[in-house]
Amino acid sequence: MDYVNALDTALNRLHEEGRYRTFIDIERRKGAFPRAVWRKPDGSEQEITVWCGNDYLGMGQHPVVLAAMKEAIEATGAGSGGTRNISGTTVYHKRLEAELADLHGKEAALVFTSAYIANDATLSTLPLLFPDLVIVSDALNHASMIQGIRRGGCEKHIFRHNDVAHLREILEGITPGRPIVIAFESIYSMDGDFGPIREICDLAEEFGALTYLDEVHAVGMYGPRGGGVAERDGLMQRVDIINGTLGKAYGVFGGYIAASARMVDAIRSYAPGFIFTTSLPPAVAAGAAASVRHLKTDGALRDLHQQRAKTLKMRLRALGLPIIDHGSHIVPVHVGNPVKCKMLSDRLLEDFGIYVQPINFPTVPRGTERLRFTPSPVHDGPMTDHLVRAMDRLWSHCALNRAELSA
Amino acid sequence: MDYVNALDTALNRLHEEGRYRTFIDIERRKGAFPRAVWRKPDGSEQEITVWCGNDYLGMGQHPVVLAAMKEAIEATGAGSGGTRNISGTTVYHKRLEAELADLHGKEAALVFTSAYIANDATLSTLPLLFPDLVIVSDALNHASMIQGIRRGGCEKHIFRHNDVAHLREILEGITPGRPIVIAFESIYSMDGDFGPIREICDLAEEFGALTYLDEVHAVGMYGPRGGGVAERDGLMQRVDIINGTLGKAYGVFGGYIAASARMVDAIRSYAPGFIFTTSLPPAVAAGAAASVRHLKTDGALRDLHQQRAKTLKMRLRALGLPIIDHGSHIVPVHVGNPVKCKMLSDRLLEDFGIYVQPINFPTVPRGTERLRFTPSPVHDGPMTDHLVRAMDRLWSHCALNRAELSA
Repeated sequence: MDYVNALDTALNRLHEEGRYRTFIDIERRKGAFPRAVWRKPDGSEQEITVWCGNDYLGMGQHPVVLAAMKEAIEATGAGSGGTRNISGTTVYHKRLEAELADLHGKEAALVFTSAYIANDATLSTLPLLFPDLVIVSDALNHASMIQGIRRGGCEKHIFRHNDVAHLREILEGITPGRPIVIAFESIYSMDGDFGPIREICDLAEEFGALTYLDEVHAVGMYGPRGGGVAERDGLMQRVDIINGTLGKAYGVFGGYIAASARMVDAIRSYAPGFIFTTSLPPAVAAGAAASVRHLKTDGALRDLHQQRAKTLKMRLRALGLPIIDHGSHIVPVHVGNPVKCKMLSDRLLEDFGIYVQPINFPTVPRGTERLRFTPSPVHDGPMTDHLVRAMDRLWSHCALNRAELSA
Repeated sequence: MDYVNALDTALNRLHEEGRYRTFIDIERRKGAFPRAVWRKPDGSEQEITVWCGNDYLGMGQHPVVLAAMKEAIEATGAGSGGTRNISGTTVYHKRLEAELADLHGKEAALVFTSAYIANDATLSTLPLLFPDLVIVSDALNHASMIQGIRRGGCEKHIFRHNDVAHLREILEGITPGRPIVIAFESIYSMDGDFGPIREICDLAEEFGALTYLDEVHAVGMYGPRGGGVAERDGLMQRVDIINGTLGKAYGVFGGYIAASARMVDAIRSYAPGFIFTTSLPPAVAAGAAASVRHLKTDGALRDLHQQRAKTLKMRLRALGLPIIDHGSHIVPVHVGNPVKCKMLSDRLLEDFGIYVQPINFPTVPRGTERLRFTPSPVHDGPMTDHLVRAMDRLWSHCALNRAELSA
């Protein structure tokens, strides 16, 4: 068996399909977000502007967050020293969970090392709690949800993305009385479109199903207190399990679920992905709690965020670029070709100091490759001007190349 | 469908079996490890000594670690702001990976959000890289390895714990030429026994298999530079993939693999659990790198650790307690009954301020419930005296109770 050859084959497949990923090595500078320094492979440095981060509100440099982290390091040290069950539960974890339960108007919350793990561990554990469970899942759910559902091994059905008629059809086909979980997202991050939360809650009620809602790209940013789209729409109480992250709008790290006390207790007790892993460093929990607390009242930051996204979409659309716009804060520009997408990204970075990662398969379906911009309150007017001018020039340039290639 | 009732049933099952877990809420005090404060459910506080942490060397309070973390927060902020591929790769992550590759004498290393994820993601991805793969796995491998192997879905065989004759038998039954991975650990954390690394590497060579070694409970603590048991025994070069953690002896958070550059590149490119999750906070990566670097030279700390463990085992054995001793740093005391195990733990905590979590199913097999002490360089003589006296009194007390119960 030639293992080296097998690895080369696997890697060449990615190179041939133009979807081999090269990680760009960057260092953000606190106080100067979204400016950062790009360390090139040759060791030289270039100042850049990050336009593809998920620190949507710039909370990763907020003084209340950093102060909370430093205080916790000073008080309690670096790591937690254990799993949640074995010496790794601290007051910082408890406070964070209380803050999150309050955010979503739920009895309890449970913090995981990431929202990926929160989805995976929770969804794979539900079949242990509800024998004979059926999970009905949106076709465009995140990889972590798909993984959790698959791993749980219960009966599953996929409904066409956001298609409540199809969802109804599937629910009608399930023997009445069986436990059902409907799993979906409030904002699908690659297109930035919203899930039909109200309609799905209506169907869940009609068919006696539980609802599982991923609000990863919404918490902190939507709703009067940052509780997400379900809060904005007055629907939090109708969702049984809410999944969120502390690593995007909250600017830190980690993930969680919020639900009834019973549900959280059962997941906590049965999920291996929760039980057998070191808990978050206290400083991370402290920073996240400070961020959640702050964003419960800072509505101005949310408003500015939405306004910046609107402005960027308007200006890119004015250039005739194919913006995907569903009214959320995410600004995807459709390119539709992995090689061209990477070329645009490379030129933006090297010629204009604009960092936006090409998004390709498996993150999005083949043929829908895109650039995905994440304007934020820290992306000011001149930065937006610079981006719009750069896209204008490069798009023409690429169109020229396209014309030549097809000639 | 009565979901509340189903959850109660699931929870009652745990209560009835005496294995419902209550998390003890503790706060370690930097500079005073292993002392900590226990916040009781009624809100009152008690000073305790943590005897069950996995911060085996006390690095979680080491000045070089805390300084590195605070510097990174000051320089770059809280979170990384993205996945490794999308704006979340920083110089801190790269430096940490270089430090780890050097530690294990490998071409490359790859950092994950935990060693749990590192195991799960790597082992489940190997079948994608090596079509027709067979994984042969030690019966007592950690939950995360079992999960990764199961999820990968390739052919698997389990060999009896540490039984190289059984492993040979299995290898002989596999069609020659098929890719094979042998997955095992260097120290099994619940008994503290060592895996037969040399013998397994010999078999791997004979049968053309790759070796996957979990050194989670060894890195930092064994080998001249903390490279683990494989380094101590001069076997690192014969192991293909080494898995380790940054959350135990290194005192921070996160996990990793170290391997050939090709292997790391392939795992990096194909593992969803790596691709789709926010990368570690730069401060966590910085603290971990500082810890790894420090422990490459601080052999005195490793020696003191081993000495403390030897002393504790000797003294507990002198009391006639059933110590499980395989010569490692882990000190398990066999109790064999979940209720009694919890009772001992409760009394130690409440009456003596000694915190040691009862270890029960599913962490260990039913009937092998135990207390598992983790002496460290920060556990001094008087603390050990106090523990030994407490165990002496309580063991007699429990034996009395046992005698009464069986009468």
